[in-house]
Amino acid sequence: MGAMASFTCGAHGTTGGMGIELSGPYPGEITVGVVDANKVAHLLPLFGDSNHSEAERYVEGKEGGGGRVAIEQNITRDYLWCTDRITGGATTLQIYSPFFSIPDPATATPAQLAFACCPCIHLEVVFNNSTTSTITGIFGLTIDHRWSSLGARTGGNLIGATSRDTIGFATQTPGARCFIDFDAVSAINRRHQSPEFLLGPTAGLEIEVPAGETRTLSVALGFFVDGVATYNREMRYYYTRHFTSLTQALSYALEHRQAYLTEADARNRELADSPLSDDRKFMIAHATRSYYGSTQWLWDGQASVWVVNEGEYLMMNTFDLTVDMLFHEMRMNPWTVRNVLEQFVCNYSFQDTVFHASDPNHALPGGISFTHDMGVMNHWSPTGQSAYEVAGLDRQCFSHMTCEQLTNWVLCTGVYFAQTSDIAFIQRHRAIIHGCLQSLQNRDNPYPSARNGIMGFDSSRTQGGGEITTYDSLDHSLGQARNNIYLGGKMWASYLALEYMLASLGDPALAEQSAAAASLAAQTISNGFRSDLGYIPAILEDNNESAIIPAIEALVYPHVMGLQSATASSGPYGFYIDTLKTHLSSILRNGLCLYPDGGWKLSSTADNSWASKIALCQFVASQILEFDFGEAESIADAAHVAWQQKGATHYACCDQFRSGEPIGSLYYPRIVTNVLWLHSDATKGTL
Amino acid sequence: MGAMASFTCGAHGTTGGMGIELSGPYPGEITVGVVDANKVAHLLPLFGDSNHSEAERYVEGKEGGGGRVAIEQNITRDYLWCTDRITGGATTLQIYSPFFSIPDPATATPAQLAFACCPCIHLEVVFNNSTTSTITGIFGLTIDHRWSSLGARTGGNLIGATSRDTIGFATQTPGARCFIDFDAVSAINRRHQSPEFLLGPTAGLEIEVPAGETRTLSVALGFFVDGVATYNREMRYYYTRHFTSLTQALSYALEHRQAYLTEADARNRELADSPLSDDRKFMIAHATRSYYGSTQWLWDGQASVWVVNEGEYLMMNTFDLTVDMLFHEMRMNPWTVRNVLEQFVCNYSFQDTVFHASDPNHALPGGISFTHDMGVMNHWSPTGQSAYEVAGLDRQCFSHMTCEQLTNWVLCTGVYFAQTSDIAFIQRHRAIIHGCLQSLQNRDNPYPSARNGIMGFDSSRTQGGGEITTYDSLDHSLGQARNNIYLGGKMWASYLALEYMLASLGDPALAEQSAAAASLAAQTISNGFRSDLGYIPAILEDNNESAIIPAIEALVYPHVMGLQSATASSGPYGFYIDTLKTHLSSILRNGLCLYPDGGWKLSSTADNSWASKIALCQFVASQILEFDFGEAESIADAAHVAWQQKGATHYACCDQFRSGEPIGSLYYPRIVTNVLWLHSDATKGTL
Repeated sequence: MGAMASFTCGAHGTTGGMGIELSGPYPGEITVGVVDANKVAHLLPLFGDSNHSEAERYVEGKEGGGGRVAIEQNITRDYLWCTDRITGGATTLQIYSPFFSIPDPATATPAQLAFACCPCIHLEVVFNNSTTSTITGIFGLTIDHRWSSLGARTGGNLIGATSRDTIGFATQTPGARCFIDFDAVSAINRRHQSPEFLLGPTAGLEIEVPAGETRTLSVALGFFVDGVATYNREMRYYYTRHFTSLTQALSYALEHRQAYLTEADARNRELADSPLSDDRKFMIAHATRSYYGSTQWLWDGQASVWVVNEGEYLMMNTFDLTVDMLFHEMRMNPWTVRNVLEQFVCNYSFQDTVFHASDPNHALPGGISFTHDMGVMNHWSPTGQSAYEVAGLDRQCFSHMTCEQLTNWVLCTGVYFAQTSDIAFIQRHRAIIHGCLQSLQNRDNPYPSARNGIMGFDSSRTQGGGEITTYDSLDHSLGQARNNIYLGGKMWASYLALEYMLASLGDPALAEQSAAAASLAAQTISNGFRSDLGYIPAILEDNNESAIIPAIEALVYPHVMGLQSATASSGPYGFYIDTLKTHLSSILRNGLCLYPDGGWKLSSTADNSWASKIALCQFVASQILEFDFGEAESIADAAHVAWQQKGATHYACCDQFRSGEPIGSLYYPRIVTNVLWLHSDATKGTL
Repeated sequence: MGAMASFTCGAHGTTGGMGIELSGPYPGEITVGVVDANKVAHLLPLFGDSNHSEAERYVEGKEGGGGRVAIEQNITRDYLWCTDRITGGATTLQIYSPFFSIPDPATATPAQLAFACCPCIHLEVVFNNSTTSTITGIFGLTIDHRWSSLGARTGGNLIGATSRDTIGFATQTPGARCFIDFDAVSAINRRHQSPEFLLGPTAGLEIEVPAGETRTLSVALGFFVDGVATYNREMRYYYTRHFTSLTQALSYALEHRQAYLTEADARNRELADSPLSDDRKFMIAHATRSYYGSTQWLWDGQASVWVVNEGEYLMMNTFDLTVDMLFHEMRMNPWTVRNVLEQFVCNYSFQDTVFHASDPNHALPGGISFTHDMGVMNHWSPTGQSAYEVAGLDRQCFSHMTCEQLTNWVLCTGVYFAQTSDIAFIQRHRAIIHGCLQSLQNRDNPYPSARNGIMGFDSSRTQGGGEITTYDSLDHSLGQARNNIYLGGKMWASYLALEYMLASLGDPALAEQSAAAASLAAQTISNGFRSDLGYIPAILEDNNESAIIPAIEALVYPHVMGLQSATASSGPYGFYIDTLKTHLSSILRNGLCLYPDGGWKLSSTADNSWASKIALCQFVASQILEFDFGEAESIADAAHVAWQQKGATHYACCDQFRSGEPIGSLYYPRIVTNVLWLHSDATKGTL
């Protein structure tokens, strides 16, 4: 957690491995299996070109070596929340990626923090010898660099290898030996007598397994980036405060192995015991891994700094992802939410003016907002500037998201406060909260009498262009910000959050003003309903007729803040809730907002549907709007699982799909929003 | 120098860029050229897929941008010792890679050392506008990471960009502006209004050039690896002692630009003014760049540590390369030779026993020797162990090179002492020198009466296998160590070097013993001459009949030590010298040791010829054996140049060629041995 590192594998016949700060799986070879008495290696299909169906073949080693290899054909896989168990033939590879609440570093003990930040995961490689001869179990990694053996460096305490003092593996299993060679096949069949041939890019472990017996290699995989990790504002990985080196982290991980496995088991049971379908359990487990691989827990010299990188794009703390990952982070460690919110206030807030599209040169009062992100690939952007946003684009990808990021700060802060009661936090930022209300209203319309509750004016940062929403790669139905009912919904929810916080701050007049703005937004959106269409068109202008599911998205915020009356048919916004119910009923049909496979299509006019947002809207539909989809739900879930497993086979958890094929947002953290499913039914409203 | 970094480009139509610690050219895009008034970019062909012949085409930008591009078709290139000048159309790119004597860091001033270690090179990009409209000159680099702009960070003092605080470029040319975008074509045609679009992997400079005028961008390219650079024994780059950051190094480089350009000009003139042919001047210039890109000047906390990495293989201080690069290093900075020799003594020497191939289990006294290398890819090997050598191989690639590395230490030490008169050095290592004599003789034969002067016994490190020579990828003619006349020649030369050093140390008895051993070696090799063949077969056993050019190689050592009588027909080894003359006369013919193109084929029985060793043997043949090849010399040189320019187009300076095609040792430092050519004729014997 927080090491921005991963051990990715599992797609049959392709590469994988240990990676740090990467935009996708490490493209190495993973060699796991047993070598039988005839020197045939029976391997799991975790390396390139290993999806052949021949029972056995001769494989040429990279430097003249070679040997006979058989790829295990019958693979079973159990993909639990923290344990990935891959079994083929005599070999079972279990990967433990435990996660748990990271304690607030400002108050936790050093021992707790060391345990939480240790940059290691755990493997268990089980070799089950049902033959009558001794066999050898092997685990090896081929990388694009070279290795040093740990045995000599640790006086035999650790068996394993490290590369560049940055990645490595270690075991203390009796009988395990380290090997280094060009490739695992050459190592198995080595004609020379030097098990540790330092010239090769492959290192691994081997262990003899007597006839009829089982041996288990208990391995820690460690990651360690020492020194400066981020640029422009220099920070280090937080784990460097607790561990002096990769070797020490590996020692610690093995010493505390049981405690990590206990955490993994607890999470595994928690998900397994939930009433969710297997498809949903898979999606949650998949999303959670992809989230943690993108997390970066840094130390700036005075305090912890929490960053979630944007999957393959590696933008830092993209705010429109933060708001979706909020539910998971609030569940696990709310301090990370607070941490990111304060980073936005301190470094990535700004003041702008706004203009109407019909009169771009007429600047009117805007207000505070926040950037799209904080930088990219460990390069912090200059203060008040994102890596993503550029000026001069009219509602196109890479334009500014000023209004939406403003709602994101308000919504995250509202949820954080509602769930933690951290009154000190909102008191500290009272002026910001006041500014947010004013800024939101100015983005509706700087003239109070002309307001309708949803966004009507664009930021001067666009330099005469037009703002977009997080749905940057979709058409205007979701991509255009102004007069968009998706963003309008988020403005409504933001006003509710502001009302709640302002009331708690003892600012009843402003709270009332917020409530009035929320009503206005709900009215405007509801009034947009077109009975000829049966739904509210996405953009309330220009005769737009797109149908969008995310019209309902923002209902999640009052719900998780405990503002149940706001989302009840019987409550003050009942008309709005009921209209959204009708809206969703109308559009969830094939050809409109359903794909032929039953998967959800966020917009009727764009073939680009996002796994994270689907999960969020599924939650809203079932738990807030009280839809009962019956069999259609499991059909949709099966489709969404197929998109990940068959579509995005090589990219771990992916967000953007075109008709089930991944087209962007690969290796992505955002889908963890689906942890909301765990709060369905029984736990409704008690997140 | 010593930054293990390079800016590689020039092969038309392919990638290049700034790289650190790489095994080949950086695979990025280099965009240099002018954008005319019609927005057409006229670019040098220094990026992928840029070898098209269409006059102009539309190029799709990577993120939706795009624009019209014309590739300059008529490129001229001047490739001087330190300046690479590439001209096409209105654009001239000049790359200055100055080199000069690196002062001994133990005695030089901080100012001298800062100047020598500054990890920057210089560019001059000249844009000549002969049109009647304003055009824009551009220089851009596309990498696999992201950039930060230098302007804001330096208060406008530097214009440019850096990535990961590790590579970057800067200028102070008035009017230059920085741009950052997805790719240069998109940057030129940007539809947005943000010149520095931080999300993109391309950064560059642009400058307006008024009609009829010329503008010159003066750019520094800088490299900076902070913190620990090597593993197992942690060291840093030496330049981190003098520079605190990449930005500071760039500032320094620009401030001292004129002094660097003066050095470059001096080297350029030196080579240009030499009497060498253009082909030889090219080969020297090419080899020198490839050498410096492999050099690593480190700091271990107490002293400088000099490492030359082995080209694409990145082994550290491979000793059989050190001995070939010796001539260049002695010429430039002898302290680096001493430094490497002492590293071998302290960390990579060992004692072994030896055995005869007929009785591998019978261990006999061996003695001191040295490992093949010191590690690989910044990983220091354990003490007394190389990355390369493994046990149990019988005269195959990756076996031990124990005898040859012993000769290499003796020969390097002998040449170092002869040329520097550093008596303190050999006094300090008197015991080692004594040990070398005994060890050499034991590798001939542990029984003195049975000795013949050349290697007969293999090291116990081979565990019953057989040693090889540096020619590891050739057949036994050059690959087998024992009874090999190539290695026999190096033993002869080693005995001469030992004689010289022992006499200087006041050990006349041992000096005499060395001289006797040299005579024995010369006799044995001469006696190997077969009049039926007309040459000495490569291996003096098993009726071997291979013809090898490197039989003459070792004559270079007494020559550069000033031991002219040793290589004279009239001297004590005149019979040996004359036999080698006859040998070379016989074998230098097509089908034996000449390729059809006139290039030299080191062994008649192996199609794998090495540019470094060819240069060395050419020097020996002309300057010591006094061959006059007439026109054949320029034909051979033209062939060798074609191997590099047409064969190894994409791999910079390459060593191993199969019939003119590169097959290994790419991006290699060793060819710098060809600096010997500069010491031909006029300077004979005065190296």
